[in-house]
Amino acid sequence: MEEILKQVQLGTLSIEEAKGKLATYENLGFAKVDHHRKKRQGFPETIYGEGKTAEQITTIITAIQAHGDDILVTRISGEKATEVRSTHPELIYNEIAEILYTRNERKNRFANGFIAVLCAGTSDLRVAEEAAVTAEAFGCEVRRFYDVGVAGIHRLLDNIEEIQQATVSITVAGMEGALPSVVGGLVSHPVIAVPTSVGYGANFNGLSALLTMLNSCASGISVVNIDNGYGAAYSAALIHRLAQPTEEGQS
Amino acid sequence: MEEILKQVQLGTLSIEEAKGKLATYENLGFAKVDHHRKKRQGFPETIYGEGKTAEQITTIITAIQAHGDDILVTRISGEKATEVRSTHPELIYNEIAEILYTRNERKNRFANGFIAVLCAGTSDLRVAEEAAVTAEAFGCEVRRFYDVGVAGIHRLLDNIEEIQQATVSITVAGMEGALPSVVGGLVSHPVIAVPTSVGYGANFNGLSALLTMLNSCASGISVVNIDNGYGAAYSAALIHRLAQPTEEGQS
Amino acid sequence: MEEILKQVQLGTLSIEEAKGKLATYENLGFAKVDHHRKKRQGFPETIYGEGKTAEQITTIITAIQAHGDDILVTRISGEKATEVRSTHPELIYNEIAEILYTRNERKNRFANGFIAVLCAGTSDLRVAEEAAVTAEAFGCEVRRFYDVGVAGIHRLLDNIEEIQQATVSITVAGMEGALPSVVGGLVSHPVIAVPTSVGYGANFNGLSALLTMLNSCASGISVVNIDNGYGAAYSAALIHRLAQPTEEGQS
Amino acid sequence: MEEILKQVQLGTLSIEEAKGKLATYENLGFAKVDHHRKKRQGFPETIYGEGKTAEQITTIITAIQAHGDDILVTRISGEKATEVRSTHPELIYNEIAEILYTRNERKNRFANGFIAVLCAGTSDLRVAEEAAVTAEAFGCEVRRFYDVGVAGIHRLLDNIEEIQQATVSITVAGMEGALPSVVGGLVSHPVIAVPTSVGYGANFNGLSALLTMLNSCASGISVVNIDNGYGAAYSAALIHRLAQPTEEGQS
Amino acid sequence: MEEILKQVQLGTLSIEEAKGKLATYENLGFAKVDHHRKKRQGFPETIYGEGKTAEQITTIITAIQAHGDDILVTRISGEKATEVRSTHPELIYNEIAEILYTRNERKNRFANGFIAVLCAGTSDLRVAEEAAVTAEAFGCEVRRFYDVGVAGIHRLLDNIEEIQQATVSITVAGMEGALPSVVGGLVSHPVIAVPTSVGYGANFNGLSALLTMLNSCASGISVVNIDNGYGAAYSAALIHRLAQPTEEGQS
Amino acid sequence: MEEILKQVQLGTLSIEEAKGKLATYENLGFAKVDHHRKKRQGFPETIYGEGKTAEQITTIITAIQAHGDDILVTRISGEKATEVRSTHPELIYNEIAEILYTRNERKNRFANGFIAVLCAGTSDLRVAEEAAVTAEAFGCEVRRFYDVGVAGIHRLLDNIEEIQQATVSITVAGMEGALPSVVGGLVSHPVIAVPTSVGYGANFNGLSALLTMLNSCASGISVVNIDNGYGAAYSAALIHRLAQPTEEGQS
Amino acid sequence: MEEILKQVQLGTLSIEEAKGKLATYENLGFAKVDHHRKKRQGFPETIYGEGKTAEQITTIITAIQAHGDDILVTRISGEKATEVRSTHPELIYNEIAEILYTRNERKNRFANGFIAVLCAGTSDLRVAEEAAVTAEAFGCEVRRFYDVGVAGIHRLLDNIEEIQQATVSITVAGMEGALPSVVGGLVSHPVIAVPTSVGYGANFNGLSALLTMLNSCASGISVVNIDNGYGAAYSAALIHRLAQPTEEGQS
Amino acid sequence: MEEILKQVQLGTLSIEEAKGKLATYENLGFAKVDHHRKKRQGFPETIYGEGKTAEQITTIITAIQAHGDDILVTRISGEKATEVRSTHPELIYNEIAEILYTRNERKNRFANGFIAVLCAGTSDLRVAEEAAVTAEAFGCEVRRFYDVGVAGIHRLLDNIEEIQQATVSITVAGMEGALPSVVGGLVSHPVIAVPTSVGYGANFNGLSALLTMLNSCASGISVVNIDNGYGAAYSAALIHRLAQPTEEGQS
Repeated sequence: MEEILKQVQLGTLSIEEAKGKLATYENLGFAKVDHHRKKRQGFPETIYGEGKTAEQITTIITAIQAHGDDILVTRISGEKATEVRSTHPELIYNEIAEILYTRNERKNRFANGFIAVLCAGTSDLRVAEEAAVTAEAFGCEVRRFYDVGVAGIHRLLDNIEEIQQATVSITVAGMEGALPSVVGGLVSHPVIAVPTSVGYGANFNGLSALLTMLNSCASGISVVNIDNGYGAAYSAALIHRLAQPTEEGQS
Repeated sequence: MEEILKQVQLGTLSIEEAKGKLATYENLGFAKVDHHRKKRQGFPETIYGEGKTAEQITTIITAIQAHGDDILVTRISGEKATEVRSTHPELIYNEIAEILYTRNERKNRFANGFIAVLCAGTSDLRVAEEAAVTAEAFGCEVRRFYDVGVAGIHRLLDNIEEIQQATVSITVAGMEGALPSVVGGLVSHPVIAVPTSVGYGANFNGLSALLTMLNSCASGISVVNIDNGYGAAYSAALIHRLAQPTEEGQS
Repeated sequence: MEEILKQVQLGTLSIEEAKGKLATYENLGFAKVDHHRKKRQGFPETIYGEGKTAEQITTIITAIQAHGDDILVTRISGEKATEVRSTHPELIYNEIAEILYTRNERKNRFANGFIAVLCAGTSDLRVAEEAAVTAEAFGCEVRRFYDVGVAGIHRLLDNIEEIQQATVSITVAGMEGALPSVVGGLVSHPVIAVPTSVGYGANFNGLSALLTMLNSCASGISVVNIDNGYGAAYSAALIHRLAQPTEEGQS
Repeated sequence: MEEILKQVQLGTLSIEEAKGKLATYENLGFAKVDHHRKKRQGFPETIYGEGKTAEQITTIITAIQAHGDDILVTRISGEKATEVRSTHPELIYNEIAEILYTRNERKNRFANGFIAVLCAGTSDLRVAEEAAVTAEAFGCEVRRFYDVGVAGIHRLLDNIEEIQQATVSITVAGMEGALPSVVGGLVSHPVIAVPTSVGYGANFNGLSALLTMLNSCASGISVVNIDNGYGAAYSAALIHRLAQPTEEGQS
Repeated sequence: MEEILKQVQLGTLSIEEAKGKLATYENLGFAKVDHHRKKRQGFPETIYGEGKTAEQITTIITAIQAHGDDILVTRISGEKATEVRSTHPELIYNEIAEILYTRNERKNRFANGFIAVLCAGTSDLRVAEEAAVTAEAFGCEVRRFYDVGVAGIHRLLDNIEEIQQATVSITVAGMEGALPSVVGGLVSHPVIAVPTSVGYGANFNGLSALLTMLNSCASGISVVNIDNGYGAAYSAALIHRLAQPTEEGQS
Repeated sequence: MEEILKQVQLGTLSIEEAKGKLATYENLGFAKVDHHRKKRQGFPETIYGEGKTAEQITTIITAIQAHGDDILVTRISGEKATEVRSTHPELIYNEIAEILYTRNERKNRFANGFIAVLCAGTSDLRVAEEAAVTAEAFGCEVRRFYDVGVAGIHRLLDNIEEIQQATVSITVAGMEGALPSVVGGLVSHPVIAVPTSVGYGANFNGLSALLTMLNSCASGISVVNIDNGYGAAYSAALIHRLAQPTEEGQS
Repeated sequence: MEEILKQVQLGTLSIEEAKGKLATYENLGFAKVDHHRKKRQGFPETIYGEGKTAEQITTIITAIQAHGDDILVTRISGEKATEVRSTHPELIYNEIAEILYTRNERKNRFANGFIAVLCAGTSDLRVAEEAAVTAEAFGCEVRRFYDVGVAGIHRLLDNIEEIQQATVSITVAGMEGALPSVVGGLVSHPVIAVPTSVGYGANFNGLSALLTMLNSCASGISVVNIDNGYGAAYSAALIHRLAQPTEEGQS
Repeated sequence: MEEILKQVQLGTLSIEEAKGKLATYENLGFAKVDHHRKKRQGFPETIYGEGKTAEQITTIITAIQAHGDDILVTRISGEKATEVRSTHPELIYNEIAEILYTRNERKNRFANGFIAVLCAGTSDLRVAEEAAVTAEAFGCEVRRFYDVGVAGIHRLLDNIEEIQQATVSITVAGMEGALPSVVGGLVSHPVIAVPTSVGYGANFNGLSALLTMLNSCASGISVVNIDNGYGAAYSAALIHRLAQPTEEGQS
């Protein structure tokens, strides 16, 4: 801000221009698209697909692409994706993750390490894939360790040495949600825990797994919202980026 | 009932006596003491100490002892126990478990196997000991495996082979309560899970551990109330008794 | 583990073989099938049908049968079952219990006693049958006592003498869930309580019955998740097996 | 109202007097004492003692007695009661019920029948006595059936024939709160159920018993607030009064 | 029981007959129909229609009618009712109340007074009518006072004098559920409060109204489950019957 | 009331007429329409459309129009609106707000200031528009500030100076619901906060946003029910009316 | 902002001064005191006393008084107040409201109208007084209507005509919290509802009253946090100020 | 594991030694101290002080120090700390954070960047300091930004440029917990959000802030348990360590 004030003082910047410098979004009427975030984070602009029509999604995509930015649409059904792709055939749709995104040539743009995505059971797959595909769209290498829930602990222990090499883990679990506690005790890197709404009875739509993860007695675990694979990947990608030598990825 | 009816029909039993046969408790005014349960289960009569005065407890003990039965008082503070022992010095007080009970000569009356009592952390000790001491008072051999929580899974795995030899496990855990899920996947016997109210924040007085255990994806786990070490021991002792050859313990 | 280490030391086991010995599951890509559990428990391998496609279920069944194991699929709709049976006509479908399973020649393989399955009302039938059919698939004799809820206590008392002969009871109840408390006070064996989501208003999808059962003032009761007939049967079968003479059933 | 309007029209009532007729309470500054309720119900005026100082209670008592009405103070500690009785020695204090009230010469003013007060366990005693003493202060005959919880069903069945003679039952229970369901199935009169906060773990301060009672599958049961013995007695007394021949009690 | 024992002793009753005397229900396989309740209460046998097929309902109706009893089916959709009436055309269906019942010639069999049914808003109509029609089927006179919610207090005050003449009131309200509190302060008879699940937002399916009613500061109010119009009517009818001269209605 | 009493006394008002003066509503059978509210508030009579049939809505509209009053129907689907408009083509339907109302010539009848309606995200649009259209139907000028959620605080700060000119703000937000806290710290007028049920996972149908708003550490904020745009507009309009010079709007 | 930018451009404001203009608080180390709020609102600066030591409170008071502003400390115990007054004897302490504040010469600085503060019962007094004293400290005239709960509706109706003259009402109620619904239906001004934690049993620390108020079917009601008398007064004072002619109070 | 197996095969490691290698903890009887974690993470061994006696804490400290490791005791009261320091005077006690720890010569051992610790209000101080002191004990540079809650957004915006330079932020907030949402929208690094139990009314001991943070619409936020400053610092330190050039800190 000080710099802008100086330029105004020096007369090298008009008041109108100064105000423009602070304008950080484009007003589409029904939405305000933020073009600065991309620059701040180096990540594609994300659209939350649920509750938006295919038409609205298409309009926002066009606005973002006009700035040359990559696209990531989460929680978009196959039906809507097909409709959007009729005008944006360059976008790829991942059915399990329910994600529509720009083919990213810079995949694995970060040289150092990988993000481990673990899930406890096969029913947690959608959320785990939402996390994995998002992290890949953000340029991270992802390795998947699925169906490694604690009720058959050998499945986890067999893979733990590879998991320990990751910079950060995303651990997805429904039902009792105990997986992050066990993982947290076995690795030395940050663990992002994602409770899922998978379960029945006293699961209460994921509340059970959420409370388990928040109360974990293992250290180094932090938690995102129920089923929020995207949010976990976002946090994990920010952490993964920090683990890179400065010259790549971080600027 | 049919037998009593037959005896009445045959005249070998008067109506008054028949009614007496059905009288299953003694009325102390403020409480009705059940003398049949002892016979039905072969276990000492139990008094829940919380909310009763030392005087009331003493009165009930005297009534039970008049029938020659053993005593087990749970949730009794050291102070009350001292007061009760002034007239009943034959009773033993266990400070950690907060249990007052009859020295049982028949300890380990069951020849076959043992009950494993596991707890996740040192703060679950009171509940674990309530379970262990109760099971011992019921005549079972107990082996303790404490501080084997999932955040340091090696502590559990190092002891798992011995635990697998038990007839039944009591698994006590607070905070995220994940221990029973891991144990349930590693043993072939029934697991009684006891959530404790140990924890803070979103633990909500044990709700977190309770939900975790109810939602466990491991099989063979059933759950008792929060902090209910006594109830777990009672169920475990019933199961342990079933595992004995008929001639001992079960009659 | 010590034995495997010894064999490695003696050179009678290669490192590769030692690692194979510890491999306890088959990786189907979307799932890891555990073939050791069967051996550990002597029970058929179970597949939770909800949320899986008929195709996925068929793939897992084929993998399990390749090891010669029996099959038990729970929570599978009639429609999916029909689809699966088109390639696996040897499997039997139970409509009320919504269970698909291998015809088990060894039914009632346990010589000693039976499991009593009680339910409070006719609306608890699906859960009660899930428990009963599961226990039968595990080789246990089951006797059913249905519609014996506490609001008409005579219906229970009329049958109590037979129920008392069981090795273990599964007690299923929705609405206020009071049945296990009454049963627990009348029998001398372990009681597994199953709350159901049957009810309306302040039932809150089974929460009411769940809390009732956890707070039961009768002893010897432990609880499984809401509607979890399968889990109750699993625990009950483990207990029932313990009640057998060693030479049969338990090895 | 029409009558008052007529009198005003006829001039037999001044406007000021008409307004006075509608004044139904006395303003003590910190409270408005309702003198009409007594007339409407035929019951003593009640003061809820919790959260009021002994001084405030004394002031309200004096105002009520000035109208010649009987007094009933609930939830008043022994200490406060002693202080109030220093100026009102004519009042009686019941320690267990924590009630202070006018010695009522008309005790049992209702000729027909009695109110049955049942409680499940000895820890529910305070609430049961609050109900019983209140009903007696209202002039009803009360018969007590204590410690008749469902875990020892014989204790209830032994007394059920006498209970069936009551005009109305008040059934008090904590923990799992199953007693009203069993009672409701055995009697033909209305049952007022009172959940108590007695219990531990997943009792959640009476929520468990409250939900049980609301979800009862027995008919003829209605529920009051947790620990609200007074409210149950009030409803029961209104019902009991209806069961009287018109000439006595009801006017 | 004593009488039956005596007859057995005298030989005037065989053991088989004695057992038959205690049989209080008919076993239809999927349900046990209780024929004694009718005698105990003098009310038609009730079938809860939700979750039962038209075929099951028809079977139960036939069994009950074989004993000459009246029928009341609650929570039965129009579609199912039509199907049942194809074989039982003598039954009447009330669309708003969703009740199917026997035309009762004895309507208003109780000479003394009436039951007032109040509801707060038009959306509470279904529940209010379930209460009203049930009470009528039980032989009570009912007077309806609908849409008298507290937000327009004049609508209630205009009718209060007639309401005060009732023997008992059923007060139905959703949303904030404040109506019973106001009514309870204005009448001298028992009030049965029925919370409904009508509302939105923080209503939480009737929890809001339920808590309001349980916490009412007016006396003489007891509460039934959310939307439980039937239960309210049952309790109200028991109370109303008590208010009758002995010779009619009560035997 | 005093005035009516005086007129009765003077004989200038008959008793029948006095009673009529107090009659404040019209009884349509299934509903009681309040014609006085309009006069009391100066606002159109409102009909809550959800749960009412198009036919019922039409009947109520006709009754209200007979008194010459304006109409506002909220929560009415497009389908029902079309049906109602077939007989009432003079009414306007707003699709996003799901509101049907009388074209009001007096739009902006209040000379002084405007109401600011803010919403955090595009998914809160329906609720925000319900608030905005209602306020306009009540004659207020409304200015919309949409998609100004706190995660991109610049979008709010850019518009804050105009918002500060409003007499009152309605702030609509789902998910974490933080917007009112920030707004409350930046303006000097009353803020009405509306939580929406928009969100997923641990949002629990708007509970998250509701609690956030109730716990706001900013002053001057009060909260209405989840999704209750209409209620917010009603309160805001009452406040806005107070901010007018007496001669206009307020009488 | 534009103005400051202009002055910087013109050179009439140095960059350092421009930054100072935006500094809106004083940093005391453990707290940042906001001196601008006072100017924005015209109200005294408020300190929330709970959880702060007397020493911290004294420090903040001194900092505020240095700017010549009035003081209002809420939730401060008598003990702490005494300690603070030892150095600030000019402050007044109100024991019931637990508020410490500057004697305000401008009391009733607003010429037009008054704020009505209603409370349902005597136990809601502390919260009602917190609201009333706060509003007075903000310069508003307050009229108190206490103990006018809905269980004795006449107490409210007797005062309603005076209440209707207020510009805004603060309605405080615990237990079932029904008072605002009734008031909202009788007045034409905005109603701020304050739930209190007064109650017992299923009151759940004010949750019952909170839900009641949020679900009110009366219009014009908005709600603040449980026991938040201060917050209600703040909102009410903002509204009351709007109701004044521009020249007084509002600038 | 493979390496150990190889050594066993080669005979360079005895079976006993191999088992010792796998022993990862020391058994103190009441606790098992894990000495490997220190090596895995490079952080001091932490003891959770709550619920442990000063004597137990002292014993564990002695065991840890015997391995030459640093100490960190959290949630330890001043009284207990004094007792422990009587034998361990080398430890430092921080009163606000309630932490006892080893004076760490390597403070700020990480060359690159700092951790920002923000808190919303002065009452969140204890939790914020627990986070800050823990992070410092782990060798991280910490910068504190306190009392920057969203109700006075300028306080945050004034400091945001410095905060943006951090590698990771810990954001502590009670009441409505909105701070992380605003911060998350303004920075490009990971944000760890810590809800505190500070608040009243519908705060429900931190539930409000917890839900707010989980539902945040800003990206890059993950959440730890209520009041869990230690857990936040642990996760933050793991992240901060990743941001270092490999040669320092990370090995």
